[in-house]
Amino acid sequence: MQDDVQPVRSGRPRHASIIDVATLAGVSPATVSRSLRGHHNVSPATRQRVLEAAEELSYSASPQASGLASGRTRTIGLVVPFVTRWFFANAVAGAYQVLADAGYDVLLYHLGSAATRDRFFERMPLTRRVDAVVTLALPLDEEHTLALRALDMPLVTLGAQIPGVSSVRIDDAAAVRLAVYHLVHQGHEDIAMISGDQDDLGFGFLSSQDRCEGFRQAMASAGLRAREELMVSGEYGIEGGARAMTALMAGPTLPTAVFAEYDELAIGALRTLRRASIPVPGRVSVVGMDDHEMASVVDLTTVAQPVLEQGGTAARLLLEVLDRGETEVVDVVVPTRLVVRGTTAAPHPN
Amino acid sequence: MQDDVQPVRSGRPRHASIIDVATLAGVSPATVSRSLRGHHNVSPATRQRVLEAAEELSYSASPQASGLASGRTRTIGLVVPFVTRWFFANAVAGAYQVLADAGYDVLLYHLGSAATRDRFFERMPLTRRVDAVVTLALPLDEEHTLALRALDMPLVTLGAQIPGVSSVRIDDAAAVRLAVYHLVHQGHEDIAMISGDQDDLGFGFLSSQDRCEGFRQAMASAGLRAREELMVSGEYGIEGGARAMTALMAGPTLPTAVFAEYDELAIGALRTLRRASIPVPGRVSVVGMDDHEMASVVDLTTVAQPVLEQGGTAARLLLEVLDRGETEVVDVVVPTRLVVRGTTAAPHPN
Repeated sequence: MQDDVQPVRSGRPRHASIIDVATLAGVSPATVSRSLRGHHNVSPATRQRVLEAAEELSYSASPQASGLASGRTRTIGLVVPFVTRWFFANAVAGAYQVLADAGYDVLLYHLGSAATRDRFFERMPLTRRVDAVVTLALPLDEEHTLALRALDMPLVTLGAQIPGVSSVRIDDAAAVRLAVYHLVHQGHEDIAMISGDQDDLGFGFLSSQDRCEGFRQAMASAGLRAREELMVSGEYGIEGGARAMTALMAGPTLPTAVFAEYDELAIGALRTLRRASIPVPGRVSVVGMDDHEMASVVDLTTVAQPVLEQGGTAARLLLEVLDRGETEVVDVVVPTRLVVRGTTAAPHPN
Repeated sequence: MQDDVQPVRSGRPRHASIIDVATLAGVSPATVSRSLRGHHNVSPATRQRVLEAAEELSYSASPQASGLASGRTRTIGLVVPFVTRWFFANAVAGAYQVLADAGYDVLLYHLGSAATRDRFFERMPLTRRVDAVVTLALPLDEEHTLALRALDMPLVTLGAQIPGVSSVRIDDAAAVRLAVYHLVHQGHEDIAMISGDQDDLGFGFLSSQDRCEGFRQAMASAGLRAREELMVSGEYGIEGGARAMTALMAGPTLPTAVFAEYDELAIGALRTLRRASIPVPGRVSVVGMDDHEMASVVDLTTVAQPVLEQGGTAARLLLEVLDRGETEVVDVVVPTRLVVRGTTAAPHPN
């Protein structure tokens, strides 16, 4: 594909931009993009106006140019907070497989911290490098969202929602309900929650907020009260879960059950409980969420979500836009299910 | 950077290739590359010949062209078998951070299976897309190696060695010795080994072969015999380790200790032992290798290797070639260390 590029002579004036063409034609940049890509959902009159404007300005989308190149970069940008966490690595792998099978390359953007994320959105290195973007479980504020929209290319979010953008996700509140009701049905009332939203990287995962709120709602609808002193948060990961459990053990009364919003947090909590010789589930029951590959090893009861599949679905949604100009915004909610293992049981009478 | 590209008019003849220039100048493609990049290790006479040949053929390296573009793609290819495994995800993250800090983008190639790997090497999508390549723990046969060399761009391998290519790795035999001697010093003689080389994906990891050989050597130098019926292999990962342990349990005598060449295999073996109610380390000791983030959770004795650091070092080696034209081939061997936890103890007298 890229045989068709050559260096430009120096001194050549800058290309007209898509914005210039849109302004001259009196349409949106998205319409310019659709017109030049030959989509059927542009009227012949509009397309004609766009083509004339593009010709007048000698506008030509370079093979590297944003989205406009009818997929000619054959590259998709995957933007993830981390690749070292099970969820993200599997979501990347799921998306990767579908994209690679369709002949696309993948540019990976691994943000790692909120500071890197902000630099990323300022610099926006995706411009001219990719045909489309998947953001994975990335909390996006308005500024980030605008920066992504300004790319004027197909976008799908996984595990987060932006108005007007297709998404793939689980129903966080429903998933939390599965965990909480399981504990309530076994007779637990003093239920703690460990969340990972206070991560030191500063992302402030949206799912974390949704799961905390889901926890309060599930407790309320079970006729129980979510006690704020039993809702502790730490950084994301095993160490965060371990420290959060230590904090709970330092409180006035040990809860009989703990719901951790990610399996890694639950696994960290289990390690703390084991080291303190507190029997699980004899004294404390523990439930996680994800069905991490290690959940079966530590015999963890959890709420499973299909992660590879979510990555694959996000990729397929993008390909539909790229290949068929599909523009309908869809929100795919994938099901979760409770997996009961050995870390939960009825509370022991004290 | 990529403002400088524009679509080429159709019908325009194909660019002269670096091979054409090399042939005309009577030098290797690598010398053409070095000459055009202005490296100091090309004689003035040779450079002059190359420049004349390039001019005669109107040869110009496009911004997307392989290696020649003096880093103008600002993109590095990372080629990994999987991203969902702890080792690979961490190696990717380590390399990524260094490359991103240096202003490079990362094209990720996640092979996933031997079939995809072979397709990858046939199609060689790296051509024209990246300035340099890191291959992570990828077993490469001669054909793959030739394909990589033909890219004529800087290359660093992590966890594998190719003659003439810089590498970062651990000393597998020495690492295995740490594990075996630990068991031998505790009094174990019937020591089994679980390897992950028979993976269903068909990669046939080199480190696996090195570790099996290292196991035989370590046993021999301890005056013991590595019994082939106690050397079992399965696919890479928890399930592979679990099945391999089941196979060992089906044998005529249960070994008193098991060395697993990756922590994921060891963790799978621990799950099988727990489910069979075989006490660890009371009846069977288990040692792994990696210091996977879950090793502390299951209290696994293991041989730790620094993975993020290996990724970072591989990236830094590449940057030295790209930025300073460093051409010395180096083989960086990073240290490993034994981490003693709760899964190993002296064999119980039967």
